[in-house]
Amino acid sequence: MLTRIDHVGIACADLAASIEFYRRTYGFEVAHEEVNEEQGVREAMLRVNGTDDGGATYLQLLEPTRDDSPVAKFLARHGEGVHHIAFGTADVAGAAAGIGGAGVRVLDSAPRRGSMDSRIVFLHPKDCGGVLTELVQAADQGRHHGEG
Amino acid sequence: MLTRIDHVGIACADLAASIEFYRRTYGFEVAHEEVNEEQGVREAMLRVNGTDDGGATYLQLLEPTRDDSPVAKFLARHGEGVHHIAFGTADVAGAAAGIGGAGVRVLDSAPRRGSMDSRIVFLHPKDCGGVLTELVQAADQGRHHGEG
Repeated sequence: MLTRIDHVGIACADLAASIEFYRRTYGFEVAHEEVNEEQGVREAMLRVNGTDDGGATYLQLLEPTRDDSPVAKFLARHGEGVHHIAFGTADVAGAAAGIGGAGVRVLDSAPRRGSMDSRIVFLHPKDCGGVLTELVQAADQGRHHGEG
Repeated sequence: MLTRIDHVGIACADLAASIEFYRRTYGFEVAHEEVNEEQGVREAMLRVNGTDDGGATYLQLLEPTRDDSPVAKFLARHGEGVHHIAFGTADVAGAAAGIGGAGVRVLDSAPRRGSMDSRIVFLHPKDCGGVLTELVQAADQGRHHGEG
């Protein structure tokens, strides 16, 4: 059902500086940048590798755009670091229903828009061993499966 | 140079309970278990997907075996959650030298033994935007490249 690690989300105070760190230190390049006003983040996706389900794994660098956003609150409490991990699936609504039925709180009643027009839900970290966990269906997976 | 996200390391208080959570909730199965006395951890590798460099991406569940281990200290400070991320490379010594030369502190003067007979080094999280970062060369990559 979950077929890849889609991305690791990393909270940072200065997106441009973080992009430059990952480029200079490891050679990772920005595949995509966007602002998600709903989530209050400016973000960059750095593609690390392709995956055997036809997708890819990214680092997602997240800078808050406002002080009341979840990432701003995370930075204030924890400082910079890993914010969440995301598993890829071809059917985010089905995966969320199955996982919710197994007793894990799904934080979104319906999938919402994530990076690169993906559809995402978040799971409650207290039900996931302290790990804020996201499920993500890539935009092109929606088309392949007739759900996009 | 770094060709995949090799694994995400997750600190947990009870390895058996965490394995059962990931199996029951997501269907991930244990590919490998071991105790690393040097690092003071009992660990399980759950394979999530294959990667286009011929490797794979895992979740690595880490339970401390003693109170003075780094993972025990992490749990005492932060509770359960993401402990580190690891990037895969075919040449961990060369990658560490290059990254160290770029001004990031490498915490191991020479690669040491990681999960599944891999060779690993850790980078200082303060030099990596708050992310404890590991570089890992899989055992079979050593053989392919004549370094194992």
